[in-house]
Amino acid sequence: MPKPKEKGVRKGMTPIADLVENVKQGQIQAIARAMSLVENEAPVARDIMDRLYTRTGRAYRIGITGPPGAGKSTLTAQLTRRFRQQGKTVGIVAVDPTSPFTGGAVLGDRIRMAEFATDPGVFIRSMASRGSMGGLARRTQEVADILDAAGKDVIIFETVGVGQTELDIAEAADTTIVVLVPESGDAIQAMKAGLMEIADIFVVNKADREGADRIKMELELMLQLRPDGEGKGWKPPIYLTVASRGEGVDALLTEIERHYQFLHKNGLLEARRRKRLIHKVQEMVTERLKEKFWTRDRRQKLEKRLPDLIENKISPYALADELVE
Amino acid sequence: MPKPKEKGVRKGMTPIADLVENVKQGQIQAIARAMSLVENEAPVARDIMDRLYTRTGRAYRIGITGPPGAGKSTLTAQLTRRFRQQGKTVGIVAVDPTSPFTGGAVLGDRIRMAEFATDPGVFIRSMASRGSMGGLARRTQEVADILDAAGKDVIIFETVGVGQTELDIAEAADTTIVVLVPESGDAIQAMKAGLMEIADIFVVNKADREGADRIKMELELMLQLRPDGEGKGWKPPIYLTVASRGEGVDALLTEIERHYQFLHKNGLLEARRRKRLIHKVQEMVTERLKEKFWTRDRRQKLEKRLPDLIENKISPYALADELVE
Repeated sequence: MPKPKEKGVRKGMTPIADLVENVKQGQIQAIARAMSLVENEAPVARDIMDRLYTRTGRAYRIGITGPPGAGKSTLTAQLTRRFRQQGKTVGIVAVDPTSPFTGGAVLGDRIRMAEFATDPGVFIRSMASRGSMGGLARRTQEVADILDAAGKDVIIFETVGVGQTELDIAEAADTTIVVLVPESGDAIQAMKAGLMEIADIFVVNKADREGADRIKMELELMLQLRPDGEGKGWKPPIYLTVASRGEGVDALLTEIERHYQFLHKNGLLEARRRKRLIHKVQEMVTERLKEKFWTRDRRQKLEKRLPDLIENKISPYALADELVE
Repeated sequence: MPKPKEKGVRKGMTPIADLVENVKQGQIQAIARAMSLVENEAPVARDIMDRLYTRTGRAYRIGITGPPGAGKSTLTAQLTRRFRQQGKTVGIVAVDPTSPFTGGAVLGDRIRMAEFATDPGVFIRSMASRGSMGGLARRTQEVADILDAAGKDVIIFETVGVGQTELDIAEAADTTIVVLVPESGDAIQAMKAGLMEIADIFVVNKADREGADRIKMELELMLQLRPDGEGKGWKPPIYLTVASRGEGVDALLTEIERHYQFLHKNGLLEARRRKRLIHKVQEMVTERLKEKFWTRDRRQKLEKRLPDLIENKISPYALADELVE
């Protein structure tokens, strides 16, 4: 009687070990499949991530965020082109707002990425920001870890900077670039959107338009007010670009490398990774605890107490205590 | 030797029992204080919420969301004025993006609410959407529960609809109103922003501007594509308003009442509350489990294994397993 060699392997599926091996080889279909399993929170996803883990921690992670229409995709494409010229492979994780209407992400300007469609050195993944509440940060990290394990040298996260998404990205990235445009109105808007405190580098894109110098000046002013937090001595520079024509992109690339060197020299790269790993362990512990706790028995207990809960005879706080005791 | 009468009471603080009693009496300072304790996740917050719980579940909860500049505050003020004319008391929970720069929420158009400053029948609370990752939904609900326990008849949640915030609001509200403006571009934008699926009622505000009829038509078209989900037979109507002049607000109010009747008749009001309560219990259970788990001993264990984690000798997945075992 043949016994299954691999934990988590199901009948008729590619064995997990094979899949993991193929991801490590950088095989495109395997990468895409592993990502889908992670995104759908398939039971085997944990096993896959566990096996890929020893190969992660090598890629440099860049986050690009900003308001809609700031030219983030164009900038991502320009940076990608340059990384490719340097012989580096690139993974792009684009987080888009989703609508259950269409059943998928509304892919904004991804079309601009078409130039990389035939380049095996670039892998682009669009992710939905909706659906699984609070799970985005985790899935984004895992998708990036897959790209990392697959040998990509650089990973670029791209997301619209309104809400929670860009905070998740800032946590996942080593260098976070906040892209604004002269039309962003003023720096107050950026502050309101909560983008000031996550930026390692500011880019004022479409800088050939009126108001670029004004917004740059305002940003400088606001940065003087910024308390020096995690940055530990890093003052976010402000770059003017016209991404559509490639203007200012080389300088930006140099700045990204300078930030990397800064993080590296000061041990901050490891500190950031360490923080991410601790979060990850805590998150996985919580998940395990929840799994172990919600047995059929406890779910029935909750069900039985529901009428009391609805009739205000017991509070959710007291009921939780009762269940945990 | 005097013994403490109340659990959770600290020296020099108002006893919790008093505070809870004063909240129930609708005392403004007590309400504000209870909210601050909840927002700061003070240890006594749980006790307060537990004691207030029996008084909740009576207020009607309305969510108002939409893009920045859609006139949500003006609409909220107009609705509030009408509820007050009907003799109803109103609690307003305004969720704003925050910046650690200023240390607080950037209060957009709250100034318009100044008319209610001297009305004891209206309580306005601004909340920050940032800082405690993922905790917004919970704090928003608890602030609303405090207003509910304080006897407010109607609670209005107001938030910018980009990101996760409006999903949290939609879960917290009985009736969710999505406000758009002709300048929103087209309905595709609304779809992209993920607002379509949470709306019980659509409002096209600033409808005296060009394009109002077009966006209404587009919304109608998109709504025909909307799969009938939780709504169970409710087709979101589309109202045109000019909130600044109060035009269309009476009709909107009637529609809110019609939606309430619809939910009531079909048992959906209770179903929504039931769902919220189950979430709440699950959330509190998770919190308890985490508290119980992360003893000093386990935190030290994690600390000790960190070097192995960083050197890829163990994955966060395996380490979590190790800790839970």
